[in-house]
Amino acid sequence: MLKIKIIVVDRTRSDFLKQGETFYMKRLKRYAKTEWVETKPAGIKKGRSTFGILDEEGGSIAKNFVPRDYIIALERSGKAYSSKELASHIEKLSLTHDRLTFVVGGPLGLSKALLDRSHEIFSLSRLTLTHEMSRLLLLEQLYRAFTIIKGEKYHK
Amino acid sequence: MLKIKIIVVDRTRSDFLKQGETFYMKRLKRYAKTEWVETKPAGIKKGRSTFGILDEEGGSIAKNFVPRDYIIALERSGKAYSSKELASHIEKLSLTHDRLTFVVGGPLGLSKALLDRSHEIFSLSRLTLTHEMSRLLLLEQLYRAFTIIKGEKYHK
Repeated sequence: MLKIKIIVVDRTRSDFLKQGETFYMKRLKRYAKTEWVETKPAGIKKGRSTFGILDEEGGSIAKNFVPRDYIIALERSGKAYSSKELASHIEKLSLTHDRLTFVVGGPLGLSKALLDRSHEIFSLSRLTLTHEMSRLLLLEQLYRAFTIIKGEKYHK
Repeated sequence: MLKIKIIVVDRTRSDFLKQGETFYMKRLKRYAKTEWVETKPAGIKKGRSTFGILDEEGGSIAKNFVPRDYIIALERSGKAYSSKELASHIEKLSLTHDRLTFVVGGPLGLSKALLDRSHEIFSLSRLTLTHEMSRLLLLEQLYRAFTIIKGEKYHK
C-alpha cells in the first residue's frame, strides 16, 4: 500500500479546520497508509528575519525525510493541476515510488533550500491561502484523487 | 458601505465548514454589508438531466438578483486572481458599484445561462472543489481582500 506522509509546521489552531482534517484523514486512510507529522514552528522573536525562520523550520521538516521519500512541496507559485491531472500524476508516481511526502509550510511558507530539495512543487491555487486552509484542501484533494484513481463515487 | 451578497445553492451540510463560514462571515461584516442567501437545490430524480437541474437552480438563484447587482459567478474555468489582484479588483469595482454579488453553484455547478448572465467568472483554483469548500474559500478570500485594501494585518 502506498505511504503518504504529510508534514506540516505546528499544530492546527483553528478548531473547524482541525475537524476537517480529521474527517479527510479518516477517508484517506482507506486508500493509503497516511501519516500526519507536525513539526516545531520557529520562535518568532521581534526583528528575526524571514530567512532565519524558514531556515529553522525547513530543518525541522527535513528531519522527517527518509531516503526513498518522493517530496512534493506546496507553494502558491508551483504547478497547478486539475483534480484529474493530480490523480493521474499520483497514480503514475505510485508505480515507481512507495512513499509520497507532501510538505506544507507555516505562515511564512517554505525556505528556498527546502523547495530546491523537493522533487516537485504543487500549487493548490493562485490565491494566497492560510497554511491551515492549505492542509485541509490538500487532504480533500488527495481523497478526491484516490476516488478518481479507483473510479469510485466521491462522497461528500 | 459596500454590499456583498453571496448566493449559494442549498444549506451547508458539513458541520465544520458551516463553522468556518460563520467565522469568516463575522469578520467580513466589519468591511461590507454582507448577506448570505441559500437557494433551493433542484430535486435530484433519477434520470434527470444535468441541464434540467442547473436550469432550475439557476432560476432560483436569479430570483435574488436586483438591477444594480454586479454578478461574479464562481467557476473552475474562470479567471484565476492572486489575492492581491482580487483585492485591487474589488477595490476598483467598489468605486462604480455598491452591490457585488457572488454566486456559488451546487454540486453540479452553474448553468450556462447563469454564467452568460454574470458580469464575470472567477476561479478559486484549477482543482475541483466541493461546492461547500468553495464557499469557505470565497469568504476567506473576501476577508483577506479587505485586509489588503485597508492595509490591515490578516488575523488568523
